Amino acid sequence: MSTLKATEHPEENPRVKAVFDDIRQTRNSDFINHMWTYLAFDPVLLENTWREVKAVMATPSALDPLTKELIYIAVSVTNACAYCIHSHTAAANAKGMSTAQHADLLRVIALAGKTNQLANAMQMPVDKVFNADAA
Amino acid sequence: MSTLKATEHPEENPRVKAVFDDIRQTRNSDFINHMWTYLAFDPVLLENTWREVKAVMATPSALDPLTKELIYIAVSVTNACAYCIHSHTAAANAKGMSTAQHADLLRVIALAGKTNQLANAMQMPVDKVFNADAA
Amino acid sequence: MSTLKATEHPEENPRVKAVFDDIRQTRNSDFINHMWTYLAFDPVLLENTWREVKAVMATPSALDPLTKELIYIAVSVTNACAYCIHSHTAAANAKGMSTAQHADLLRVIALAGKTNQLANAMQMPVDKVFNADAA
Amino acid sequence: MSTLKATEHPEENPRVKAVFDDIRQTRNSDFINHMWTYLAFDPVLLENTWREVKAVMATPSALDPLTKELIYIAVSVTNACAYCIHSHTAAANAKGMSTAQHADLLRVIALAGKTNQLANAMQMPVDKVFNADAA
Amino acid sequence: MSTLKATEHPEENPRVKAVFDDIRQTRNSDFINHMWTYLAFDPVLLENTWREVKAVMATPSALDPLTKELIYIAVSVTNACAYCIHSHTAAANAKGMSTAQHADLLRVIALAGKTNQLANAMQMPVDKVFNADAA
Amino acid sequence: MSTLKATEHPEENPRVKAVFDDIRQTRNSDFINHMWTYLAFDPVLLENTWREVKAVMATPSALDPLTKELIYIAVSVTNACAYCIHSHTAAANAKGMSTAQHADLLRVIALAGKTNQLANAMQMPVDKVFNADAA
Repeated sequence: MSTLKATEHPEENPRVKAVFDDIRQTRNSDFINHMWTYLAFDPVLLENTWREVKAVMATPSALDPLTKELIYIAVSVTNACAYCIHSHTAAANAKGMSTAQHADLLRVIALAGKTNQLANAMQMPVDKVFNADAA
Repeated sequence: MSTLKATEHPEENPRVKAVFDDIRQTRNSDFINHMWTYLAFDPVLLENTWREVKAVMATPSALDPLTKELIYIAVSVTNACAYCIHSHTAAANAKGMSTAQHADLLRVIALAGKTNQLANAMQMPVDKVFNADAA
Repeated sequence: MSTLKATEHPEENPRVKAVFDDIRQTRNSDFINHMWTYLAFDPVLLENTWREVKAVMATPSALDPLTKELIYIAVSVTNACAYCIHSHTAAANAKGMSTAQHADLLRVIALAGKTNQLANAMQMPVDKVFNADAA
Repeated sequence: MSTLKATEHPEENPRVKAVFDDIRQTRNSDFINHMWTYLAFDPVLLENTWREVKAVMATPSALDPLTKELIYIAVSVTNACAYCIHSHTAAANAKGMSTAQHADLLRVIALAGKTNQLANAMQMPVDKVFNADAA
Repeated sequence: MSTLKATEHPEENPRVKAVFDDIRQTRNSDFINHMWTYLAFDPVLLENTWREVKAVMATPSALDPLTKELIYIAVSVTNACAYCIHSHTAAANAKGMSTAQHADLLRVIALAGKTNQLANAMQMPVDKVFNADAA
Repeated sequence: MSTLKATEHPEENPRVKAVFDDIRQTRNSDFINHMWTYLAFDPVLLENTWREVKAVMATPSALDPLTKELIYIAVSVTNACAYCIHSHTAAANAKGMSTAQHADLLRVIALAGKTNQLANAMQMPVDKVFNADAA
C-alpha cells in the first residue's frame, strides 16, 4: 500500500537518474530503496532530500557514522515511523552495529520513553542549573 | 508548577535517603535534581526508576556514556519532554559533548524528524531486504 | 503566553454565558478554567467542545469517572499537553485519586512508554491470535 | 488485523443504517470505508463521530474543503495514523489535489517536522512579541 | 517483517527458559507472544522487561488489573504502537472488558486526543489553581 | 531557559550576518526571532535551515502562503512544539488568517487528533481502494 503511485521508469527523468546515480556511488551499491523511488514523483523534493541525507549522514563530521544512525533510529522509533526504523536499523547493521550495541540502544530508548512519561506527568519545574543562558 | 506537591524533607524517609545517597555517590556531586525530589512521593517508584537509570546510563556497556546521552536526548526531543531535554543536554555537556557534536546531534534529529514525515506521508512498502527475519 | 487573545467579558455573549452557566452547574463550582475562557473566541467551538466533554466525562457510563480521568491523563502525558495534564490531574484529585493510585498510574504510563519503544524498535509481527476479526 | 471484530450485517441496526445512508448521500457514493463499518460496533460512537466529521469536513466554512484535507493529513502524518493518512490522501485527491500541491504539502510537513525538532532541542524562550494576550 | 531476527530455539538458553516459564505460570497459559520471543535476543533485556511488566501489571496494586490495561492501551494508541495496541486490547478482553467499556475507552482517548490539540494550539496559561506545589 | 547559550553579538560572524540580513529583507522587518539567534551557534546549521525555510515558506509555489502556515501549525501542534506553534500562528496572523479561519483550523486539527486515536485504537485494515499503487 502507498498513498503515491510509484513512478514507473523513474530514471527516464535525467534529474532522477542523477540522484539515483549519486546514491549508488555514495553507497557503493546498486540497491535503491523505496524512499527514493517514491520521492521520484517530484524531482526537486528528491534532490533536496537526498542532498541533505548525504550531507548529514554520509559526510564525515563530529559524530561517527554509527552514532548518527543510532540517533536516527531513536527519533524514528519515537515517531513510530516503520519505514525509517527498518531502513536505519539496516543502515546501522551495515555500519557494524553489534548485537550488544543494539541491545544497549533498545535499553536507552526504552528508558527515555519511560522517564519522559514520568517527567511529563509530574510537570515539575526545570532545575535552574540546567539553563544554558544562565551558565 | 507541578502536578505533584514536592515532598518536604524527603530524606527523613530512609528509603529515599538511601537513593539520594547513591545518586550523590554515583554522580560524585551533592546536587539532586527535581526528577528525584518529586519521585520521592513514592519510594518504590523512586527506587526502581533510579536503579534502572543507574544500570543503563551509569554502568559501562557496549555504547559509551556520551552516545547514550545523545540517544536519550533524541527520544526526549521527539517526545517534547522539556524537563528531560534540559537534564540530558546538561548531562551530555558534563560528559564532554563538544559544540560541533551538539550541532551534529541537532542536524541528525532534525533530518530524522523530516524524513519520518515524508515516509509516513507516502506509506510506501518497506523493502523486503530490510526484513531481518528473512536475512 | 497564548496564541489567542483571551476574550474580555466573554459572558456578554449569551451563547458563551449559557455554556459557562452549564459548566458551573455541572461541576457545582464557580471556577471556569482557561480552556473555556480561551475557547470562547468562537462560541460554536466552545459549545461543541463542552457538549462532548460533558457527555463523555460528566455523564454516567460503563467506566467510572475516576477511571476516565486516568485514561485522559495517560493520553495527555503521551501527547505532552501540559495544560491537559494539569487540568485532568486536578480533576482526578477532585474525584478521589489516592496517592497510591497516582503512583500506580505513573508506573503504568511509564511502563507503556517503555515497551512501546521496544515494540516499535523491533517491528516484530503482531501475533495472529490478537486479530479480533479472526476470533 | 484489527482489535475489534467488524460488525456483520451492520445495517440491520437502524441507527447504523441511518448513518451509512447519510454518508452515502453526503459523499454521493455507495462506498462505506472501514472507519465506519468498524465504528458500527457502538452506534452512539458512530453517530457522534460521523456528525462531527460531516459538520467540520463536509460543510462550507471559512477554509475550503481541500485546505481542510491538507491540514487533516498533516496531523495524521505527525501522529503516524496509517489509516487516516490513506483515507485523507484519497479524500484530498478526490477534491482535486494536484501533484504539485501534494509535493508542496510534503515539503511543508517535512520542514515543520524538522524545525519542531530543532526548537524543542534548543528550548529557547518564546519571543514576547508572539504573545497574543499582550498584543 | 522485523528489525531483529527471531531467536531460534530460545529456550536452549536457561535464562530465557526461566523467563518463559515464569510467563507461562503467571498467565496460566502456554502461549508466549512475539514480544518475548524477540526480546530473547538479549536475555538481560528480556529479564528486566518481564520483571517490570510482571511487577506493574500482574501484581495486585492500588488500581485494578483492567484499569491498568485501559491506561496501557491509551498510551499505546497515542504512541501509535500497533503491536502494543493489539496485545493490550487482547489482555483487556481477557480481563473482562465489556463492549460498552471498550466503546467508553475509545470515547475518552478520542476526546483527549481532540482537546490536547486544542490546548496545545491555544497555548493558554495553566490556571494557578492547578499548581500542586501551591496547594 | 534554553539548552544552548544564546550567541552574544552573533552578527560579528559574517556568515550569520548574511543570513540575518536575508531574513530581514525577505520579511521586510528588522525583527529576528529567537529561532535564528539560537541557531547562530552553528553558522552552517543556521544557513541550511534558513535556506530551506525561505525556499518552502517564502517562495511562491502550488499552495498559497497562508495554507502553508496552517499546515505548519497543524504539525507543530501535534508535535507539541510550543515555540513553533507561537511563531507560526503569528506568521499566519501576519498573512491574514481571519478569526473564522483560525477557529476552522482548530476544528480540523482537533477532529483529526480525535479520529487518529479511534483509527489507531481499532487497527482496522486500510481499504484497498486507498492504495495508490493499485490505482
